[in-house]
Amino acid sequence: MEPRAVDEIILNALREDIGPGDITTALCVPAGKKITGRFGAKQPGLICGLHVAARVFTLLGGNAEMSLSVEEGAAVERGDVVAAVSGEAGIVLKGERVALNLLQRMSGIATSTAEAVRAVAGFKTRITDTRKTTPGLRVLEKYAVRVGGGVNHRFGLYDGILIKDNHIAAAGGVINAVEAARRAAPHTLKIEVETSDLDEVRQAIEARADIIMLDNMDDMREAVALIGGRALTEASGDMGNRDLAEVAAMGVDLISIGALTHTVRALDISLKFDIC
Amino acid sequence: MEPRAVDEIILNALREDIGPGDITTALCVPAGKKITGRFGAKQPGLICGLHVAARVFTLLGGNAEMSLSVEEGAAVERGDVVAAVSGEAGIVLKGERVALNLLQRMSGIATSTAEAVRAVAGFKTRITDTRKTTPGLRVLEKYAVRVGGGVNHRFGLYDGILIKDNHIAAAGGVINAVEAARRAAPHTLKIEVETSDLDEVRQAIEARADIIMLDNMDDMREAVALIGGRALTEASGDMGNRDLAEVAAMGVDLISIGALTHTVRALDISLKFDIC
Amino acid sequence: MEPRAVDEIILNALREDIGPGDITTALCVPAGKKITGRFGAKQPGLICGLHVAARVFTLLGGNAEMSLSVEEGAAVERGDVVAAVSGEAGIVLKGERVALNLLQRMSGIATSTAEAVRAVAGFKTRITDTRKTTPGLRVLEKYAVRVGGGVNHRFGLYDGILIKDNHIAAAGGVINAVEAARRAAPHTLKIEVETSDLDEVRQAIEARADIIMLDNMDDMREAVALIGGRALTEASGDMGNRDLAEVAAMGVDLISIGALTHTVRALDISLKFDIC
Amino acid sequence: MEPRAVDEIILNALREDIGPGDITTALCVPAGKKITGRFGAKQPGLICGLHVAARVFTLLGGNAEMSLSVEEGAAVERGDVVAAVSGEAGIVLKGERVALNLLQRMSGIATSTAEAVRAVAGFKTRITDTRKTTPGLRVLEKYAVRVGGGVNHRFGLYDGILIKDNHIAAAGGVINAVEAARRAAPHTLKIEVETSDLDEVRQAIEARADIIMLDNMDDMREAVALIGGRALTEASGDMGNRDLAEVAAMGVDLISIGALTHTVRALDISLKFDIC
Amino acid sequence: MEPRAVDEIILNALREDIGPGDITTALCVPAGKKITGRFGAKQPGLICGLHVAARVFTLLGGNAEMSLSVEEGAAVERGDVVAAVSGEAGIVLKGERVALNLLQRMSGIATSTAEAVRAVAGFKTRITDTRKTTPGLRVLEKYAVRVGGGVNHRFGLYDGILIKDNHIAAAGGVINAVEAARRAAPHTLKIEVETSDLDEVRQAIEARADIIMLDNMDDMREAVALIGGRALTEASGDMGNRDLAEVAAMGVDLISIGALTHTVRALDISLKFDIC
Amino acid sequence: MEPRAVDEIILNALREDIGPGDITTALCVPAGKKITGRFGAKQPGLICGLHVAARVFTLLGGNAEMSLSVEEGAAVERGDVVAAVSGEAGIVLKGERVALNLLQRMSGIATSTAEAVRAVAGFKTRITDTRKTTPGLRVLEKYAVRVGGGVNHRFGLYDGILIKDNHIAAAGGVINAVEAARRAAPHTLKIEVETSDLDEVRQAIEARADIIMLDNMDDMREAVALIGGRALTEASGDMGNRDLAEVAAMGVDLISIGALTHTVRALDISLKFDIC
Repeated sequence: MEPRAVDEIILNALREDIGPGDITTALCVPAGKKITGRFGAKQPGLICGLHVAARVFTLLGGNAEMSLSVEEGAAVERGDVVAAVSGEAGIVLKGERVALNLLQRMSGIATSTAEAVRAVAGFKTRITDTRKTTPGLRVLEKYAVRVGGGVNHRFGLYDGILIKDNHIAAAGGVINAVEAARRAAPHTLKIEVETSDLDEVRQAIEARADIIMLDNMDDMREAVALIGGRALTEASGDMGNRDLAEVAAMGVDLISIGALTHTVRALDISLKFDIC
Repeated sequence: MEPRAVDEIILNALREDIGPGDITTALCVPAGKKITGRFGAKQPGLICGLHVAARVFTLLGGNAEMSLSVEEGAAVERGDVVAAVSGEAGIVLKGERVALNLLQRMSGIATSTAEAVRAVAGFKTRITDTRKTTPGLRVLEKYAVRVGGGVNHRFGLYDGILIKDNHIAAAGGVINAVEAARRAAPHTLKIEVETSDLDEVRQAIEARADIIMLDNMDDMREAVALIGGRALTEASGDMGNRDLAEVAAMGVDLISIGALTHTVRALDISLKFDIC
Repeated sequence: MEPRAVDEIILNALREDIGPGDITTALCVPAGKKITGRFGAKQPGLICGLHVAARVFTLLGGNAEMSLSVEEGAAVERGDVVAAVSGEAGIVLKGERVALNLLQRMSGIATSTAEAVRAVAGFKTRITDTRKTTPGLRVLEKYAVRVGGGVNHRFGLYDGILIKDNHIAAAGGVINAVEAARRAAPHTLKIEVETSDLDEVRQAIEARADIIMLDNMDDMREAVALIGGRALTEASGDMGNRDLAEVAAMGVDLISIGALTHTVRALDISLKFDIC
Repeated sequence: MEPRAVDEIILNALREDIGPGDITTALCVPAGKKITGRFGAKQPGLICGLHVAARVFTLLGGNAEMSLSVEEGAAVERGDVVAAVSGEAGIVLKGERVALNLLQRMSGIATSTAEAVRAVAGFKTRITDTRKTTPGLRVLEKYAVRVGGGVNHRFGLYDGILIKDNHIAAAGGVINAVEAARRAAPHTLKIEVETSDLDEVRQAIEARADIIMLDNMDDMREAVALIGGRALTEASGDMGNRDLAEVAAMGVDLISIGALTHTVRALDISLKFDIC
Repeated sequence: MEPRAVDEIILNALREDIGPGDITTALCVPAGKKITGRFGAKQPGLICGLHVAARVFTLLGGNAEMSLSVEEGAAVERGDVVAAVSGEAGIVLKGERVALNLLQRMSGIATSTAEAVRAVAGFKTRITDTRKTTPGLRVLEKYAVRVGGGVNHRFGLYDGILIKDNHIAAAGGVINAVEAARRAAPHTLKIEVETSDLDEVRQAIEARADIIMLDNMDDMREAVALIGGRALTEASGDMGNRDLAEVAAMGVDLISIGALTHTVRALDISLKFDIC
Repeated sequence: MEPRAVDEIILNALREDIGPGDITTALCVPAGKKITGRFGAKQPGLICGLHVAARVFTLLGGNAEMSLSVEEGAAVERGDVVAAVSGEAGIVLKGERVALNLLQRMSGIATSTAEAVRAVAGFKTRITDTRKTTPGLRVLEKYAVRVGGGVNHRFGLYDGILIKDNHIAAAGGVINAVEAARRAAPHTLKIEVETSDLDEVRQAIEARADIIMLDNMDDMREAVALIGGRALTEASGDMGNRDLAEVAAMGVDLISIGALTHTVRALDISLKFDIC
């Protein structure tokens, strides 16, 4: 993750939450008061976002600091302490909610990804993500997928070529579309084509696509056989509700799952304080 | 919702997704090609975010435009068409993912909120949200709660006073904390105090708090009776997993539910295209 | 005051004043030259903005530093030294004007506020501000009002409800307007209604407004009596030109004064240097 | 004035005032309601900032529009209508305060400047401003000085050379300082030197300074005679409290007055509405 | 090119050039004056950046507009008129310099690229660019390369994998480096390896790199033969000073040339005006 | 150079190059790996931009640091080491390209300027620049001109008055234009007039212009004689292709050369690494 991009997300979140000031703390907490808090897992899962949460307090300035009890990506059980934060109460209480919101969300994504990765253990298949991420948080969410053991698909429209049905229709067929792409695209990018039946798969093979996406396809096993290793294969289409091992058993190289990021169950993590 | 704030979210999301350009479309889709797409519900729910999605295409410039088939907040069934977008393919395909990501997420929140509101129908109790929102999207998520029939809690640390255990400890007790707040806070804000047992409730009453939060409290019914209308009451604490009617039956004025925004199930909405 | 918001104001002011560079200093002052300056009051008043002025030099980088001789909010006499700044001449001279502009202005507001607070001493009445602040500087000006002993009114349109004549007309009467607000507003906000005669005061009472503003009202004493403690009362309307003790004597809880911030007399503070 | 710079000031002011939204109007004013307001002078003065105020409503989008009844720079009497604004109530009420704050402040500066200009009528002396402007608003305030009949001094440290006592001390005397400046400065800039007694004036003449500032000088008349037209002369130093005609009579080319912008009396302008 | 990214570059350039205002025009040109200017080529070349130049005037607002006499990418001769701009003088003169600076620079790049493309005509070899672009202008310069007939290499560090000597040393050899990349990189990206002798080429082949860069290599012809089509080949290393046909004749797929963007000869284009 | 302005340029360049992350380094270089690189001149020239290049690594955070072997502005020979950078490989490799791009470009400009300055050695004539700079980099490029021994012309439209043919036409003649400028311009700015024949020169003298630009003029020697020291003289018009000594011999005070910045030959500087 690019530090400057992460800082922008955090600063934006702090601005959103604090606005012109934390009134309650300004009114009730004497200046200079120290506080210590402990982040504790309230359910089992993978912890992700510790450095992002710690950065929240660093960016708030002052002398608040986080110390980690587990490593990024650690599997925790209910009750485990994952980190502590201590410093000036006025700073710590300002960062509390933002740090928790980020940590819970990223841990939720890493946890779900790890479940998916476990589900296909033993197969060559890798789990990957999509562009169905929360607007503004893609860099964090794609990172959480990696922490959970997945690999990233393209980050956006700018760093990968994925020719979909609309592109094919507009270009006048699969062959035309792939050739147009190959002619003028940066030579550093592979060309992926979305297909939804065996006929389209055949065209994608003929066009020498580098990657063939099998979208919501019934004949996935036949498609993989047809391709025969001449292109990478990626299964997609509501994979969040599928038996992933069954899909992996069909021999696909990748399964892309939108639900990893579009339907996030925040991991329940608490932050309990002692005031000194 | 403040239009400028919404525009910033959308532009940020577009920048994140498009970066220096949509390579695939630039390569495969001839300039000037027109396209029409239909947004369709793939499951029942409340539609929210139509104007935000429409604004995505407006901000992309060009001549793409969305037309709405249902009103903001409409209840839809699987298969219902909710809107259409048509215009230059290069523009429409650039905005597609961002528009869907926002629409699905906001509709998911509105749908969950509406379920919670239905659960307490017949009681005076209102459903409200928390600060457990997705960093950077609070203005959209709080709006979706309103569309779902909920009312908003404070937007951030700057527009409401909520005295929590840490503030109380730092100030030296409930009375001290509330008095400190009343002395210097803007007179336009009420003072809310978090309590976790009947003893704290008694102190909050004595301090003449305007609102008393009953957090994870076993004796909620007794607390409400004790307060006897002298303050608003707000039930909180993992309310996403509680029987809301049971809580409402205890007579609280408000139930605040973090899960409305921290664990969002995106409403499944598709966008299908015709190319001309 | 939120540090990040203050930094943005300072950086903006520095950009405005320095642009691509301080030509005179670059041409005439040898690199590495040290300088020491003393901020001195040239008239009596309350000093406000010392930490903001100090921050100007910190944000300019380098090794310039300010040391304070009095505390924020101190009452000073003509000739008192309030702070010193020393460091590299190239840095100090760049920050001089911006630091002075902020310090003089904030001290001017704090001084005027303190005069108003003194004028109502002995009464329960508190002095509050308005939204008639200098565009872009509200966070500093509202802070200066607090330093001067006043309390802040709402910060903007987003953190307080103030129903004015236009809202009443649009909503179809005081009762309708207050009820509409109470139905859907965050429960953490009080509802204030502006009134200009006793009839409107009566309606505001009936609507159970939390705060009743008495705007330019002749019968202020009668209004206060009529309200009888059922709502907070706020006197407003060209209060900068009124005898404040006379107004306070009518029993109002608050007097809001636009002139505190819209017509600021900068406190005269000089900065005299020694070059080493 | 550069339109983009003005827009940034306005947008910043709107963000400051509106934050996540205008709660009162959202709650009380039905969508689509139209409103018309009239800006009226409540005291005599020069109107300045009409196009800036109008731009506030344009930038708020929607269909609100301002129409002007007088020209920018017009002299008005108490009771004169200066402009009207009409459009959707939700837009107009959001912009009201920002538009008024800018219009009143700019008109206040133009009015004070015009008074100073009138005071030196009949002399060759011109009235000019300083860098003692409100942080962030310099472009508006310098424009208001021009509308009031003054001429602008340098905008910042970057577009003019003004050698002050500190620069002279650091450079080792007036001659050294001026020569250093002349050697390397852009040839498009004149060189101004600040002097505080006749001895310094003599050195500035010898150094062939283009402009000689006479700062708080007792022997101003002698200084002007000594210079004898070999440089422009600028009187400065608490000129806001001086008899300007007396200073002009000494033959200076310019009088620079910090008070024009550091101590602004907002011109009282009201905005009264009709709701339709 | 992404329109929003281009707008940011233009607005930045306008801010840099205009600052608080165009003094000369404000002083000398009466408001409302119309002007017409003609952009004329003063030397032969490829015109690039017409839409960017036109956008300069659009972003300045007002009614200035550019009309094109040739198409983007057109080859022009000395004396050809390429476009005209007409509108309010105050607007046109503000945009003149920025529009010319962009147009001349982009045309210079397109012209040099076209020369390189012509030099390898008849070979399969394509001309590509590098990351040696002018900081802040990469999106424009890579576009100009495309207009000149070249293809783009990766845009930055984020959208392509290029394993250089340092990466290889850090990873412990070519094989290790390529395998590490293949294991975790987005599957949509090819893997390119930089080599500088035949031994490294052999390792890159063994590691199954997708693209092999031949950097400053003496045995380029042998390298191409060795690779035998198993990877794309890219010649690099001071190619701006090489006989490109000679390099192409060795059979490489691509030649990357840093000088296309790091040493730009602006195409001489004038803008002559008529004032009405 | 203003540090904040330089930082903005660098951060913009880093964002452009790194986007969401440096994929290759993330995949291939183990965390914590240290690296040392040496910047070496590959051709003779003047080194400029060392502090800017060093700042690139500082802004990337982490522990990378540059140490300089020569001073800013030093003349170097092929093979000279000019600086070293060492630190965490992940940081150093991210900054490498941006640092080189800036250093090579700025050194190229300083080197060309120094050549021009040498060409007019022995004459009083000074070399100056123009507004034909790379959009967004003017502050760096004008600084490089100074390092090369030139003096800067105005920075933009806002800090100098240059009356060109269009202004003259619009104002109704040279006299009118100069008088309009003198009447209302800041008194700190000189007035420059562009002339293209002796007749215009005569008018400029009569109008008492402070500076007379002789643009593409055949009778330059006569013009200088005519002016006779009553104004500064500036030769301009494709001076990049002229014999500068010949022009200087005509007695002009300044020669302005657009090619110094519009046609930059990057100085060839390499960065070679050792990995530890």
